Amino acid sequence: MYEQLRKYILPELIPSGTRVMVAVSGGPDSMALSHLLWRYTQEESSRGVSIVLTHVHHGVRRESDAEAVMVQDMAKKWNVPCLVHRFNAKRYAESMGQSFQEAAREWRYARWKEDMLKEGCSLLATAHHLGDQAETILYRLLRGSGTAGLAGMYPSKGSIIRPLLSFTKADILNYCAREAVPYALDDSNQEPVYVRNRIRLELLPELERSYNSRIQETLGRTGELLRWDEEYITRQVKAAWDQYHYQDSQGTICLKLDVFKEPAAILSRLLRKAAMQVTQEPRGLGFTYVAMIMAAQGKPGWSQDLPGMRVKLTDEGLQFCRSHIDAGQKALNYKIPLVIGQSVEIPGSGMVISLLKEWNLSSVNSHTKRENKIAVFSSDLLTQVSKQSLVCRTRQEGDKMWFKGVGHKSLKKVFQEAKIADDARNRIPLIADEAEVLWIPGVRQSGLYRADNEDEKIVCILTSRIGRSI
Amino acid sequence: MYEQLRKYILPELIPSGTRVMVAVSGGPDSMALSHLLWRYTQEESSRGVSIVLTHVHHGVRRESDAEAVMVQDMAKKWNVPCLVHRFNAKRYAESMGQSFQEAAREWRYARWKEDMLKEGCSLLATAHHLGDQAETILYRLLRGSGTAGLAGMYPSKGSIIRPLLSFTKADILNYCAREAVPYALDDSNQEPVYVRNRIRLELLPELERSYNSRIQETLGRTGELLRWDEEYITRQVKAAWDQYHYQDSQGTICLKLDVFKEPAAILSRLLRKAAMQVTQEPRGLGFTYVAMIMAAQGKPGWSQDLPGMRVKLTDEGLQFCRSHIDAGQKALNYKIPLVIGQSVEIPGSGMVISLLKEWNLSSVNSHTKRENKIAVFSSDLLTQVSKQSLVCRTRQEGDKMWFKGVGHKSLKKVFQEAKIADDARNRIPLIADEAEVLWIPGVRQSGLYRADNEDEKIVCILTSRIGRSI
Repeated sequence: MYEQLRKYILPELIPSGTRVMVAVSGGPDSMALSHLLWRYTQEESSRGVSIVLTHVHHGVRRESDAEAVMVQDMAKKWNVPCLVHRFNAKRYAESMGQSFQEAAREWRYARWKEDMLKEGCSLLATAHHLGDQAETILYRLLRGSGTAGLAGMYPSKGSIIRPLLSFTKADILNYCAREAVPYALDDSNQEPVYVRNRIRLELLPELERSYNSRIQETLGRTGELLRWDEEYITRQVKAAWDQYHYQDSQGTICLKLDVFKEPAAILSRLLRKAAMQVTQEPRGLGFTYVAMIMAAQGKPGWSQDLPGMRVKLTDEGLQFCRSHIDAGQKALNYKIPLVIGQSVEIPGSGMVISLLKEWNLSSVNSHTKRENKIAVFSSDLLTQVSKQSLVCRTRQEGDKMWFKGVGHKSLKKVFQEAKIADDARNRIPLIADEAEVLWIPGVRQSGLYRADNEDEKIVCILTSRIGRSI
Repeated sequence: MYEQLRKYILPELIPSGTRVMVAVSGGPDSMALSHLLWRYTQEESSRGVSIVLTHVHHGVRRESDAEAVMVQDMAKKWNVPCLVHRFNAKRYAESMGQSFQEAAREWRYARWKEDMLKEGCSLLATAHHLGDQAETILYRLLRGSGTAGLAGMYPSKGSIIRPLLSFTKADILNYCAREAVPYALDDSNQEPVYVRNRIRLELLPELERSYNSRIQETLGRTGELLRWDEEYITRQVKAAWDQYHYQDSQGTICLKLDVFKEPAAILSRLLRKAAMQVTQEPRGLGFTYVAMIMAAQGKPGWSQDLPGMRVKLTDEGLQFCRSHIDAGQKALNYKIPLVIGQSVEIPGSGMVISLLKEWNLSSVNSHTKRENKIAVFSSDLLTQVSKQSLVCRTRQEGDKMWFKGVGHKSLKKVFQEAKIADDARNRIPLIADEAEVLWIPGVRQSGLYRADNEDEKIVCILTSRIGRSI
């Protein structure tokens, strides 16, 4: 393992004379990584590479103290600097409304960035291995991803390097045993609660047993092939971006009309890039929205509100303008086709609307939040949906709903009866077919297409984005 | 479903005036497809689209007769031609040494090609649906694949169209029930014996239950994104191919030296394309070999035998020459690094060599053939392997092997004792480290690095290519 790193991997990842910050949790992966890198600094001293260790004491487990001491002792023995940060991530997570893991991760990276500046390190080494890579690729595949996501983690990207990315956990444990590297086991990684843990502890072993005994290597290789493709396309997109985009004084991003001549691989990425620059949403623009904008080609005047922005097609090109929904005043205007089995985010609401067949309902219920708002429709709606006329949209002039024994009511009347404030009425998403409104989520479902017991049912669900499961 | 096909999908897939051959097994998918296409020819008669049905009577199941009658009756009712082919694929498969499914599939496509010519059809419609697409993508992911494979099946490629690719099995069954379309159920698809059936019947439902209730749609979408990328890169590769390749009078394909300046996404595909043109092997060149040729950059004089061809780096460029091993005379010359957890095909032998850790052995045994040839090495070899010095190669001047209590013997002596014919000696693959030969598969293992009971073990296995599992 050391020989492979010394000969082939580390010279590629670490330029001579570099000072490298090593993130050490105290587990076998990061302890082995530290040991390997330290050997490299000693045995290849002519390269002038040096290391600094950094450790985060999470303060939630009893073993945390002992781990910090173990890391510090090792650093002292090797005579390398070791920074230790103490942090109660749990309290932090509660106060920020994030998950523990997310919060801890963000906080760690922020500290490491500071440490690197302070210690003059230009690279940060993390101990991700082939098992982590396989898990990441499967996780992204299950959640939905394109080439960029399925490419997995990069051995080197920006200032982060992952020297162990092509080695298995077994290689690492074997190295620790052979070189008598001490380590602590992190129990929280052994609980199949988080989706990623379940992938690691249940799905990957099952795939290994029943489908491909070398699944980790296979996925790692797929990641490498896709990385080649993504790197190539990214370079092409960069050139295309310079060619097509310009920005006006209000921060609106425009793409020239010619952009539609680009093949889908390039066009879709340019749209995502424009959206990300406007909304600052790192997750980017979902597939449904990308496809919607692509379909706007040749329809000048087309305009659509999407989460965090409004997209317009003018004679000059595609405009991406930031929406200022924080003010709560500006009327939204969107019309999003709904497809059975798919979910879309509703602009300006942080909510997601899903259209599902009844038989998928059990699995959804277990994942989504209790406060779901649900409407159940009959199979007659199926005909509507397959004509693609069912939409989630904002209020329109003349909107009405039909109720049994009553007939049609204006939407205004329905809102009045439900005591919905005037300024909220223009922002509530509506589910409608071509003719009229079928459901105001959280307010009222019309009498049209209501399911009776014998029908095959379709279910429309409103969830908060946070509660979205993979 | 019909409305979506009529409005958005079929006009894209079928040009006006086209005669379409529809492959009908008699199952729900192909019966629904026939019905949908027939409706389209009737309701959109101005487009001048017509259909012809073709059915293969496999003659292995009792229900086969009834299915053929059902398809013919439907065709008669609609007044469209219906071709029926009768074939005992099982006997065919036995005589050809292929699996039943492979043989049947090849035979079917050959018949359809003939039928299309005979009936003047320019398109063949198959009934693959979203479930098939998800299964295909997972199958390829588990077997190992890049962008091209993970892109899944195409809705339209060459003369094949797949109109139902974005619909689920449930959509299809629902359509059959609603329109009273008769169909037969194919029981052989319900047995989780074949890997693909296991993916459909076990893995996909498990992923749907535990990870993503919309996994089919998610995978279908991933396929679409990757298809965009693959189509784009394929176009770039086509241009690069014209720029770099030339062919000499002996059929050798050459790529100009500059080809190494291309990014990995393009270079790897050019290498695969050159190899495929020389060997006619539709599966293409494995990752290991692609990486090997890529690593030859800057080493003029480098040469390597690979399955079905020899690749040479000269001052002018990379040469891919077909090897004529059929003659059995020409000496081979290859040296392939072995990596733990990986398998490589041995040039000119139709055999595969795998290097595995002991704990993977159980899963391998169940998959591979009984006639495996196996050598077991001790953990000392691990050190050799991690130095990347273990290779599978052809015989070299001065080759020797070490035996306990005897010392070194020349390879010639070992061959003589084992009564290996002279002309075979240059073709038998050898497993060796940098200094000497460790194992002649099927002949003898040396005394070096032999495992004793306490060691962690590495296993080297020789299998035939046919017996290769996913």
